[in-house]
Amino acid sequence: MAKKSTLKIKPMDDRVVIKRLDAEEKTTGGIILPGAAQEKQLKAEVVAVGEGKLLDNGNRATPDVEVGDIVIVSKYGGTDIKVDDVEYTILRESDILAKSC
Amino acid sequence: MAKKSTLKIKPMDDRVVIKRLDAEEKTTGGIILPGAAQEKQLKAEVVAVGEGKLLDNGNRATPDVEVGDIVIVSKYGGTDIKVDDVEYTILRESDILAKSC
Amino acid sequence: MAKKSTLKIKPMDDRVVIKRLDAEEKTTGGIILPGAAQEKQLKAEVVAVGEGKLLDNGNRATPDVEVGDIVIVSKYGGTDIKVDDVEYTILRESDILAKSC
Amino acid sequence: MAKKSTLKIKPMDDRVVIKRLDAEEKTTGGIILPGAAQEKQLKAEVVAVGEGKLLDNGNRATPDVEVGDIVIVSKYGGTDIKVDDVEYTILRESDILAKSC
Amino acid sequence: MAKKSTLKIKPMDDRVVIKRLDAEEKTTGGIILPGAAQEKQLKAEVVAVGEGKLLDNGNRATPDVEVGDIVIVSKYGGTDIKVDDVEYTILRESDILAKSC
Amino acid sequence: MAKKSTLKIKPMDDRVVIKRLDAEEKTTGGIILPGAAQEKQLKAEVVAVGEGKLLDNGNRATPDVEVGDIVIVSKYGGTDIKVDDVEYTILRESDILAKSC
Amino acid sequence: MAKKSTLKIKPMDDRVVIKRLDAEEKTTGGIILPGAAQEKQLKAEVVAVGEGKLLDNGNRATPDVEVGDIVIVSKYGGTDIKVDDVEYTILRESDILAKSC
Repeated sequence: MAKKSTLKIKPMDDRVVIKRLDAEEKTTGGIILPGAAQEKQLKAEVVAVGEGKLLDNGNRATPDVEVGDIVIVSKYGGTDIKVDDVEYTILRESDILAKSC
Repeated sequence: MAKKSTLKIKPMDDRVVIKRLDAEEKTTGGIILPGAAQEKQLKAEVVAVGEGKLLDNGNRATPDVEVGDIVIVSKYGGTDIKVDDVEYTILRESDILAKSC
Repeated sequence: MAKKSTLKIKPMDDRVVIKRLDAEEKTTGGIILPGAAQEKQLKAEVVAVGEGKLLDNGNRATPDVEVGDIVIVSKYGGTDIKVDDVEYTILRESDILAKSC
Repeated sequence: MAKKSTLKIKPMDDRVVIKRLDAEEKTTGGIILPGAAQEKQLKAEVVAVGEGKLLDNGNRATPDVEVGDIVIVSKYGGTDIKVDDVEYTILRESDILAKSC
Repeated sequence: MAKKSTLKIKPMDDRVVIKRLDAEEKTTGGIILPGAAQEKQLKAEVVAVGEGKLLDNGNRATPDVEVGDIVIVSKYGGTDIKVDDVEYTILRESDILAKSC
Repeated sequence: MAKKSTLKIKPMDDRVVIKRLDAEEKTTGGIILPGAAQEKQLKAEVVAVGEGKLLDNGNRATPDVEVGDIVIVSKYGGTDIKVDDVEYTILRESDILAKSC
Repeated sequence: MAKKSTLKIKPMDDRVVIKRLDAEEKTTGGIILPGAAQEKQLKAEVVAVGEGKLLDNGNRATPDVEVGDIVIVSKYGGTDIKVDDVEYTILRESDILAKSC
């Protein structure tokens, strides 16, 4: 069962909102990204998910991530926003490299 | 129920007309974008919505925003227009990053 | 009911022929675009409409503007032509930003 | 009823063969393009029409011009050819801006 | 009825193999391309035709030229090959401008 | 029967996670890539496979590699990540040149 | 009946593995490519064929070459690999210009 987002914004289309995790922190998925590797990609938690990509036939594809997923993203992707003094990043689902499982 | 636009122009296709909100103002959605963050994206209110994107099969996709929605957009997207001395911006729905909910 | 074009040329595909309106004139739609704003977009009247965009399945999409519509277009779009000593512009429907309603 | 081409070549796909008309001549469609305007677009008569654009499903779209149509084209589009000492231009139907009607 | 190719190679997809004709020679189609015009396009005879363009649905489009057709091509298109000491050019059907008829 | 991944991350879409193999090692597939050739492509073992490429109709294509496959990839493709101190590369299935069989 | 590949690698998607033939050798198809022509394209033998191009509907197109086919390819296409000390080239089927028949 997917968790419900507590964030007051909903990303459009196939966008998701993520919150970057402390790079030294060890997640339940056991992913650690120390040193130089940190400069290439980052762990983050998905906090809001859009309706999904608009297909050629007018339907939307089902997003492949859920609120609460821990994901690996490229450091330089997406747009940073600030909601209630907390920093988030909005990016497209296709910019997510992998999720922990 | 979607509010009805009071604006006398209707954007074409998947375009929407937005009115930028005062960056210091706090909306009902609780979104605040102060300081440096303001230089990257902006809050705005949707004041008119087009018919929706033309699909390959000749139909149009249903727009995912309504008149009255508060949205986050990139500062440099869209074209500025002036109607009855008020400034608006016309941009494509795909340029909207997120909406408050 | 759409007005009939009195122009002796018919634009191809999703093109429309427009006649630029005097920038100071106030239309029934109440759109005024004075000063600096004039350098970014312009009001125009639609005087002829093509058959509509050719779709992947061989049909044509129904144009979303009609002869007589007042539209807002970017100043630098389209190709200028002269018919019976009057100047017109031919552009694609997708280059029209909005129409008055 | 479309006239039959007397030209001994048939353009491929959505191409058409046109013969440029004398710029000072006044056509039955009443189009005149004198002076500076001549440097941007030109009148021409369609002398041969291809089978039509190949669609994704393998069919061909029906061409929207016929032999004998007077059309407006951009001056710099297409490829010039010479058949029996007469100069023609081969271009794609989508490069035709408008036809007289 | 299409002639059968005597060439020992078969072009792939929507490619055709052509043999350029002597520019001064007059074909049965009556096409002459002398002087400066020769620098822009050339007559050629089709000597082999591929299976046709692969469509999105996995079928192939029927080629619109046959072995023996006289075609007009751009001088700089295609790749030159040599089979049994004779020079040919392989190019895509979409690079053929017109065929004689 | 495909082996099950023991990796705690799952790549998104048509991405796969690979572990580069020691270039001197000889695999069961007998592939050796010594010397200069090593600078162009590399052997790797597939350790995790995504859901497959999102198609236009909203379905996903079945991946053509499985966990445990030995593949040849270009040296410079993909993004390097580190999980539990081991280095992996995430890349798209279309960037895999071949698999041993 | 297609020959079976003895190569221990299978190319992905619409890729094929070819072995370049000695440029002076005369094949059963009678293709000779001596001198300057050798600098533009080369003969090669197909030694392995992939599953075929992934179509928009999720199926794969049937490859148009088989193991054992003699093909003409551009000299600079594809990626060179070495298997059991023999040099091969992996390239996409669409990069093959023609096959002997």
